[in-house]
Amino acid sequence: MRSVNPATGEPLGAEFAPCSRAELEAMADTALDAVDALADAPGAQVAGFLEDYAARLEGDREGIARLAHEETALPYAPRLSEVEFNRTTFQLREAARCLRDESWREVALDEKHGLRSTLVPLGGAVVCIGPSNFPLAFNGVSGGDFAAAIAARNPVIAKAHPGHLNTTARLFAHCAAARDAARLPSSSVQLFFDCAPEDGEALFACAGVAALGFTGSRAAGSRLKAACDALGKPASCEMAGVNPVFVASHAAAARAEAIADAWTTSVLLGGGQFCTKPGVIFVSGEAAAARVAARAGEALAKAAPVVLLTESIRVHLAHSVESLRVAGARIACGGRAQGSGFRFEPTLAVADATLVRQARAAFMQEAFGPLGTVVAVEGDAQLVDFARALDGQLAATVIADADDDAVRATLFGVLRFKVGRLLKETMPTGVAVSPAMVHGGPFPATGDPRFTAVGLPAAAKRFSKALCVQG
Amino acid sequence: MRSVNPATGEPLGAEFAPCSRAELEAMADTALDAVDALADAPGAQVAGFLEDYAARLEGDREGIARLAHEETALPYAPRLSEVEFNRTTFQLREAARCLRDESWREVALDEKHGLRSTLVPLGGAVVCIGPSNFPLAFNGVSGGDFAAAIAARNPVIAKAHPGHLNTTARLFAHCAAARDAARLPSSSVQLFFDCAPEDGEALFACAGVAALGFTGSRAAGSRLKAACDALGKPASCEMAGVNPVFVASHAAAARAEAIADAWTTSVLLGGGQFCTKPGVIFVSGEAAAARVAARAGEALAKAAPVVLLTESIRVHLAHSVESLRVAGARIACGGRAQGSGFRFEPTLAVADATLVRQARAAFMQEAFGPLGTVVAVEGDAQLVDFARALDGQLAATVIADADDDAVRATLFGVLRFKVGRLLKETMPTGVAVSPAMVHGGPFPATGDPRFTAVGLPAAAKRFSKALCVQG
Repeated sequence: MRSVNPATGEPLGAEFAPCSRAELEAMADTALDAVDALADAPGAQVAGFLEDYAARLEGDREGIARLAHEETALPYAPRLSEVEFNRTTFQLREAARCLRDESWREVALDEKHGLRSTLVPLGGAVVCIGPSNFPLAFNGVSGGDFAAAIAARNPVIAKAHPGHLNTTARLFAHCAAARDAARLPSSSVQLFFDCAPEDGEALFACAGVAALGFTGSRAAGSRLKAACDALGKPASCEMAGVNPVFVASHAAAARAEAIADAWTTSVLLGGGQFCTKPGVIFVSGEAAAARVAARAGEALAKAAPVVLLTESIRVHLAHSVESLRVAGARIACGGRAQGSGFRFEPTLAVADATLVRQARAAFMQEAFGPLGTVVAVEGDAQLVDFARALDGQLAATVIADADDDAVRATLFGVLRFKVGRLLKETMPTGVAVSPAMVHGGPFPATGDPRFTAVGLPAAAKRFSKALCVQG
Repeated sequence: MRSVNPATGEPLGAEFAPCSRAELEAMADTALDAVDALADAPGAQVAGFLEDYAARLEGDREGIARLAHEETALPYAPRLSEVEFNRTTFQLREAARCLRDESWREVALDEKHGLRSTLVPLGGAVVCIGPSNFPLAFNGVSGGDFAAAIAARNPVIAKAHPGHLNTTARLFAHCAAARDAARLPSSSVQLFFDCAPEDGEALFACAGVAALGFTGSRAAGSRLKAACDALGKPASCEMAGVNPVFVASHAAAARAEAIADAWTTSVLLGGGQFCTKPGVIFVSGEAAAARVAARAGEALAKAAPVVLLTESIRVHLAHSVESLRVAGARIACGGRAQGSGFRFEPTLAVADATLVRQARAAFMQEAFGPLGTVVAVEGDAQLVDFARALDGQLAATVIADADDDAVRATLFGVLRFKVGRLLKETMPTGVAVSPAMVHGGPFPATGDPRFTAVGLPAAAKRFSKALCVQG
């Protein structure tokens, strides 16, 4: 296995070997050796590991960001070398803080009955599988799930994403050095580069594996979640969504162009490859919707083609455009692969509400890449109907003016049960790492509406078990 | 459908009709009408409903307890009319307290990023399915899951257990009166008496159903959990276990008889029909194990036959005894159905460690009823091996003396990842309703090691979703 440079389509960097089932099972067995050490270590020791890891990363900031740029075609600066890099080291330090202050524990005492309860580690490894689009901040060996799993004192078995194998190997070298310097068992963190899908599912049956932290596609997430569910092992799966924007009629009429500008900027961020991309904007009032579509079309037609992360994202995006076309949408601009490597034109789809009602699945399916859809809705009542018909989403935005107060309240009332994060006026891209963040949402956005993948200490609780000691 | 008097095997009380799939789906649809009302009601209004319900139950204490006694053969006093009754009204009042103090919410604020997050209701009904063995305190319409679901402001669709249909109907009449007096929508709490298994599974696909709260057998729980898992809907399933007791060598030698007495008392509590029954006791040292077995055999041989809750429990118990016999266990006393109704003899099985290693599944399978197994283990090292080989359990007990400090520490280190509640010296029957309780545990004891079914506010979090509001 080799990485591919998305800008050229050419192989890049070292060769990596996939893992056999026996090797995976050996990793699971070995992880058990680290369980007690991590559970019983002084908090400062495990925190020190993460803080040292963050410092080592900062010492190699340029090299890591450069490599990630080559493998993903994401901008070197400020995206990789600053924004995502700082997010990554911040998350590691937040996890270290959790280990020092034990804020994830949920301690309860009952002297009368002789009971003490607290969250403890799971007793086995968390398998961390990161996505293509955040080579550092969601990487299985440095990202949010990794940090949360270690914060709750679990060993980690990370799987590299095929889109950034070299970056992952480089991160892991720093991780392993920090782990060893902190005198933690080497099986506290292990890495593999790939495996057969059926071997990956079989890994969860091993006694040494206790949970899954997954970010990626609905198909892969659902398969791994099913394997965990059958075994009663917690699976944290962040999957798919379109994070719709709902624009009420007065706001739409008053500021169609400004709303279009904010939306297209958000759609294009990260090349449209954010899980929080607002893929669909529902605009109340057909005249205002036409203005939003016209302005968005101008902006997207002017924007440069995007180098997508992987070839499979390009193939999937082309399929999505085609299925929108078949469903009756007008492709107002873009729609095609272009040039060398994995380039694709910024693309706008436009449809009226009737079409979307007829082919809801096609319109509400997530597509990574620079594609957005404007839906012209008859009025505010129909806007609410679209909210009611929504599947679970990571996020949704409501844009409304003072004269839209009633419909805004109705939309909030409906959407609070549909999404993990409900935004007033703001576009959903940009997920602050904060204890008050919820990066989650009902199925199929994630596998469980009760949790968040971003924001400690809550994110650590995904990888914990409850324990009461009596007497 | 009619209930059966377990003491006589004769039908008892009114006839009840099972529910068709269309009727179930209509209940799910109707539940949606109560979602906003419960989510937005003043906490005092919903709390008032529960407090009024508790008061109405207390006004009918004797009638309810008498009916429950007839349907279950559990002792009228103190078990039903006092202990279980008071537990039930206490749980309802604890849930009311949660609704007043909002202690289940996990509020987090981040002014810098304009974020507020909190747990909210799920946006649909919780289907509450209670077990045979607690006609009041775990009943779908009055028990712990009911209280937790309402504490988190969700509508409830309860299913009656066939073992106590009349008691459930009587509880529901009080519930409905209190619900109506509190001016909550009638679909806030709905009840059905039975349905075809496939219709029950299909219920979870309805938009109006958001979660499951189940207590019962592993087979039924696993089937319903799988239906929920595939839909990404939370399933709280309390299933099976043997809640083993581990006796270290010095303690065993010093106090075999006292330990045997405490154990047999716990095995016989509730006719052995508690999910926390310590079904297996592992005794380190063969001489001490023989003393425990001899003393336990005397106590169980003297005890009166138990009237079991249902015919299926009697059938299952007879099968369990037979499979222990086939696996090589010695049935030291009892082992047979006896007399009229669903009576069964208190039964002791005795085996040495070698037999258990050869037929672990037979020895570690839960069996409701007055059956306990003494396992003679070679020594403390082998005791630890049995702990390591354990499946997930609700509870485990370690009994050890000062000279057993090392093995006790090792057992605690192993068992903390295997059980929800780890007891020092105490037998596991008797689950205090306390914020510091964990009535949970890794699969297959429950479906998810992160939660507890007893103890508010934690138990309410099972039936919540995380929501962040931004801007």
